Amino acid sequence: MKQRLQKLTEWLKNENIDAAFLTSKDNVFYLSGFRSEPHERLLGLAVFQDKEPFLICPAMEVHDAKNAGWEWEIVGYSDTDNHWDIVEKKILDRVGKVHKWAIEKESMNVERYEEFLHRFSGASYTAAEEILRKLRMIKDDKELELIQKACEYADFAVQTGVNEIKEGKTELDILAAIEYELKKKGISEMSFSTMVLTGANGASPHGNPGSTKIQKGDLVLFDLGVVYEGYCSDITRTVAYDHVNEEQDKIYHTVLAAEEAALKAVRPGVAAKELDQIARNIIAEAGYGDYFPHRLGHGLGVSVHEYPSLTNTNELIMEEGMVFTIEPGIYVPQVAGVRIEDDVYVTANGGTALTAFPKTLQIVKG
Amino acid sequence: MKQRLQKLTEWLKNENIDAAFLTSKDNVFYLSGFRSEPHERLLGLAVFQDKEPFLICPAMEVHDAKNAGWEWEIVGYSDTDNHWDIVEKKILDRVGKVHKWAIEKESMNVERYEEFLHRFSGASYTAAEEILRKLRMIKDDKELELIQKACEYADFAVQTGVNEIKEGKTELDILAAIEYELKKKGISEMSFSTMVLTGANGASPHGNPGSTKIQKGDLVLFDLGVVYEGYCSDITRTVAYDHVNEEQDKIYHTVLAAEEAALKAVRPGVAAKELDQIARNIIAEAGYGDYFPHRLGHGLGVSVHEYPSLTNTNELIMEEGMVFTIEPGIYVPQVAGVRIEDDVYVTANGGTALTAFPKTLQIVKG
Repeated sequence: MKQRLQKLTEWLKNENIDAAFLTSKDNVFYLSGFRSEPHERLLGLAVFQDKEPFLICPAMEVHDAKNAGWEWEIVGYSDTDNHWDIVEKKILDRVGKVHKWAIEKESMNVERYEEFLHRFSGASYTAAEEILRKLRMIKDDKELELIQKACEYADFAVQTGVNEIKEGKTELDILAAIEYELKKKGISEMSFSTMVLTGANGASPHGNPGSTKIQKGDLVLFDLGVVYEGYCSDITRTVAYDHVNEEQDKIYHTVLAAEEAALKAVRPGVAAKELDQIARNIIAEAGYGDYFPHRLGHGLGVSVHEYPSLTNTNELIMEEGMVFTIEPGIYVPQVAGVRIEDDVYVTANGGTALTAFPKTLQIVKG
Repeated sequence: MKQRLQKLTEWLKNENIDAAFLTSKDNVFYLSGFRSEPHERLLGLAVFQDKEPFLICPAMEVHDAKNAGWEWEIVGYSDTDNHWDIVEKKILDRVGKVHKWAIEKESMNVERYEEFLHRFSGASYTAAEEILRKLRMIKDDKELELIQKACEYADFAVQTGVNEIKEGKTELDILAAIEYELKKKGISEMSFSTMVLTGANGASPHGNPGSTKIQKGDLVLFDLGVVYEGYCSDITRTVAYDHVNEEQDKIYHTVLAAEEAALKAVRPGVAAKELDQIARNIIAEAGYGDYFPHRLGHGLGVSVHEYPSLTNTNELIMEEGMVFTIEPGIYVPQVAGVRIEDDVYVTANGGTALTAFPKTLQIVKG
């Protein structure tokens, strides 16, 4: 945490910002180690150029915040306190007047912003999101360990789903079985709504799991992830039920070749857009260029979508410590939908896949 | 929808507000019938005193919005459009200058607010939340029907959980079984995180389902709800495993008496605080006054927590068409936690419980 706070502090100095006040649960967790869902209550982290930071939270959560490892001041408030009075006083005690604030403009609401405008009149406001996205982009060893664990549960989840495939089962049956087995292992939070899509549903960009029954000759697409101690995984695998036809087979192996080529090209120094282009070229050369309508991948960590964004225009250079998905797909309406997705970690020597479920085409019998 | 829009329009006229621009998914759904999860994309509904309203959403959702029954203009934008330019133009086409806006100050973020400040300089901003909470408080027949359906699934979910109780099962095992059976019936969204709490966990205000195993002599508390076509249910039942001791029995029957007395007192004309007080008195008279630390209940509908709030100070008068929970509880640390909760609809003749799972103390054997 100390190193993360220090980097934020450096940014405050460089930008001549007196104080940052952060209220999104993901950024507060990232900087303080304290993971809490405040709902409409205030959870805030104040950071300064050279004064001690403080955390403010409901009184009944102070103990948890301390246990989470926050070493500096924790201010608890009760439902009858005016927490904004407390925030104002604590801030003015530390820095006198605030001329320039950093706040999260994408998550702070107008009601809270009006409190700031009213209490700190004349101050200017800078968005804090960009710097935090950049800090969060490079993972440390502890973060990597948690993401790796989240990926292991994702592998297990796909295996559970594959085991459930049987004539007459619906997408929702299989989805329910996956989350049931995860819950029994203590995983109660998915990183997004689990997708189990079969047949034409898997080829639709807007497919949602429903009561479609799996039939022999269908492809079944799993896209899912879990949250493990605050960190997300995200995997996609596509398997076949009973048999595949020629076109399904061609589409599958084109996606697989694209995914593996992009994964192999990962190394510090390569640009995001180069990785996207490598996969996109392979798909285009096979004649499916119009059927890969999304970016190659996205970073993940505390959030399931974060930096870097792997688009065909992003010139961002890959660095050691980044974690992102590689997930090319081909979706031909009424024919087949295939996507293969790994979570990848950038090391000095190249990319390491953190998800390990086999990618050779599996044809499920039974 | 027409009636709801008309009521909002009347409010705009009374408050001399030129335009409302609403972006929360719940209020947009309530007023337009279109239920969508826009994530970071813009979904907006503009309503005026006497001009035609319009809906703005991503282009790929226009079709769904139309199908949802929205009869007025739908503006679709693509990822390359500047949607704020479109919003500005559409609004100025209708009303020229905007002097006074209604926006959702609790959900609009600073980034969007700055767009408004920049594009409509000199305008003032009123919070739209309060009027929408009041409109949403009174349910129409269609809404009641959906909530009733959501309640039936909640009853089913509790029954599923009760059926799962067995020596050695954990809270998470039972929770997983409940959500599994719901998913198989097509219910994929819970209205909040399902609670299955046993033993000391049920007596803690901060209990979370975990790997605690059920033991004979435990009470098991279920608190859960589902979302059915956009409407929420919320039920709590507490059952015993194998046997109860004298104090558990007394606590259970005190809570039950409090719940039933409050339910019986529901009628148009009674104040929220009177209902709370009726339940609170019964609990206090039995000697457990210090162990009922929360309000009696809350409204529910599109959100699982909405108006009315049934606290011991709220003087709001109950009206026909309101739907709310009645959920007294007693939590004696290390002894027992009991809560019983029904969803209740106010008719001209009194309160009707929409949840129907039996409330006589069930002692599960096996």
